Amino acid sequence: MSVRDKAAIVGLGATEFSKNSGRSEMRLAMEAINAALADAGLAPGDVDGIVSFEMDNNSEAEILRNLGGPHLRFFTKIGFGGGGAGGAIQQASLAVAAGVAETVICFRAMNERSGQRFGNPMLQNQVTAEQLLMSFHTVHGLQTAAAFTAMAMRRYMHETGATTDDFATISIAARKHAATNPRAWFYGKPITREDYHASRLIADPLRLLDCCQESDGAVAVVVTSLERAKDLRQRPVKIRAAAQGLGRGTCVLTNYYRPDIAPRDESRVVSEQLYRAAGLGPEDMDLAIIYDHFGPTLLPALEAYGFCAWGEAKDFIKDGAIEVGGRLPVNTNGGQVGEAYIHGMNGVGEAVRQLRGEAVNQVAGAANILVTAGNGVPTSAMILGV
Amino acid sequence: MSVRDKAAIVGLGATEFSKNSGRSEMRLAMEAINAALADAGLAPGDVDGIVSFEMDNNSEAEILRNLGGPHLRFFTKIGFGGGGAGGAIQQASLAVAAGVAETVICFRAMNERSGQRFGNPMLQNQVTAEQLLMSFHTVHGLQTAAAFTAMAMRRYMHETGATTDDFATISIAARKHAATNPRAWFYGKPITREDYHASRLIADPLRLLDCCQESDGAVAVVVTSLERAKDLRQRPVKIRAAAQGLGRGTCVLTNYYRPDIAPRDESRVVSEQLYRAAGLGPEDMDLAIIYDHFGPTLLPALEAYGFCAWGEAKDFIKDGAIEVGGRLPVNTNGGQVGEAYIHGMNGVGEAVRQLRGEAVNQVAGAANILVTAGNGVPTSAMILGV
Repeated sequence: MSVRDKAAIVGLGATEFSKNSGRSEMRLAMEAINAALADAGLAPGDVDGIVSFEMDNNSEAEILRNLGGPHLRFFTKIGFGGGGAGGAIQQASLAVAAGVAETVICFRAMNERSGQRFGNPMLQNQVTAEQLLMSFHTVHGLQTAAAFTAMAMRRYMHETGATTDDFATISIAARKHAATNPRAWFYGKPITREDYHASRLIADPLRLLDCCQESDGAVAVVVTSLERAKDLRQRPVKIRAAAQGLGRGTCVLTNYYRPDIAPRDESRVVSEQLYRAAGLGPEDMDLAIIYDHFGPTLLPALEAYGFCAWGEAKDFIKDGAIEVGGRLPVNTNGGQVGEAYIHGMNGVGEAVRQLRGEAVNQVAGAANILVTAGNGVPTSAMILGV
Repeated sequence: MSVRDKAAIVGLGATEFSKNSGRSEMRLAMEAINAALADAGLAPGDVDGIVSFEMDNNSEAEILRNLGGPHLRFFTKIGFGGGGAGGAIQQASLAVAAGVAETVICFRAMNERSGQRFGNPMLQNQVTAEQLLMSFHTVHGLQTAAAFTAMAMRRYMHETGATTDDFATISIAARKHAATNPRAWFYGKPITREDYHASRLIADPLRLLDCCQESDGAVAVVVTSLERAKDLRQRPVKIRAAAQGLGRGTCVLTNYYRPDIAPRDESRVVSEQLYRAAGLGPEDMDLAIIYDHFGPTLLPALEAYGFCAWGEAKDFIKDGAIEVGGRLPVNTNGGQVGEAYIHGMNGVGEAVRQLRGEAVNQVAGAANILVTAGNGVPTSAMILGV
């Protein structure tokens, strides 16, 4: 039983993306969820499933109470932070395809800038196997997501010959897309190559302009059956496939004990499943939304998802290839570097807009889009299409 | 697309149940998982999916590393503590039926007695909507699971005429079953009606002998497709149906603002789905494993799952009805009151043994078993059969 094209995204809602929302994470969640339902032409009482991220602080029970709906028949949360978006969408499509639930909300709401910042040094306050493993790194001062990723990307540079000037190309493209996107934090603020190289070093080789935003905000989508979608207000965005992956030795950002320390193994596990399940290949993708907690991680991701061979991403991205008009436009919303960091769910929103033909940086005739979640952690991805 | 009888439990493993395991929760998890795989005749490297409880402290990434397997293609966690077992089994059956994963482990491992005891007063250390709601109760000294449940059961007694002598009947049955079960903490220790009434009051009307154990231990099962199950070592235990439910106004143990404060609404949401999905009714169940964090909650659960009408459970349980040999044997392992409290997963283990014909308190010819998760919280349940 395949779930290909059995379920569709029929509604999209989001709050503004800011550095200080001024309201609770629950309020953000409800605003995005209600906006998504209104967009779909559905009522709050229609919701019978909710899928979110384990790191999301909003209980499904509280959301149901705030929605005023009668009951939920499906609820779960995906772990590992930014690796979760594809898993959440997969969950919704499984539930809808099996008839377990009819109207499933997938959302992420967080005050990640004004509240608990993920960029801060990590603290261990529980004695779990995972946190003990992390303590082998934190005890040496390797304590932030930037520092963890810097180690992996330095090795990647050594192996492939990629340079910080290639990293600049990625940030410039993201900020170019953000500059024309009114939702983006960096709306109207493109950067030059000089700006990139002059920006502050955060964790060698990563500079400030490699880092994603830290953001407050929420994004929600409504998933229902493709059959029902046909009677609703919006053009259905089909879930062609969604998959999760956790590779041999995948840790949370600290993959230093496996043969390839570039953040890529778990993405390969996802990539293989995804294209097989969708019956499509990388050559069928009209654009890609690639998770960019740090812009340079686009390079190994492009390789893991088959857009180019191992070590060749640095050449693949040249000459505007990842900008609108190029051979594979990437992160046309500005990505998490340029628009906002909502754990990848804002990228899902951009894919929905592109497939509806409503994006600010529209790729003409976009019919199939790869949307990935974070790499270097247990991860997931999806292919959406019309 | 129904998932009925598409997936089966083919392996069962558990540690001993104790008050002080003397080892880590990860160690407990690995012992149970490896035992379940050995029971199934499968290898650690076969595992490609893991489902657990949000409250479980063992990361899927660390488990994969310890198993030594190549990758995972499916992983998620179900929230709300003891409400999760049916949700976990549902997740495994969805993944297997959709071909997302082939060999899925569902497990729960915890040092709940020697480590963090759930019976302790609850602490709020995060400002989430759910915890703020809980603080309306804790500020008045209503801080423990026993106290929360006592409120609901006192109201239930008022409405139905059930008495503490009915509660005694439930504990006596559980302890009778535990007394002949070498795995049970209370092996060889049946109780009398006098013992029950003489036991210490914990939270009026609940007495010590109403309370489940607090336990260290782990239970794991292996789920695969029914097709593949036929070639494996054990008699396949079919997952006839599994469902989740969260009712209007369901809170975590504190359902005081809805018309019916007995812990029943969320169980009704599950019950309706479950019997419809399985094509079976309560009359088809040969026995039932009913979640007994507190024994008296069996009464509203028996009503919610349709074994008797509203308010009639107190009569239903009389004259040995819920003991082996009665019309509906319940918790033939001794339940969580008599065997151990592993968040309901030890009840799943008992159902597997009954359906294989290997239980110590075997119900002859058991072919269909209802297994519920906690009520009074967002919950779930399953029907297993052969």
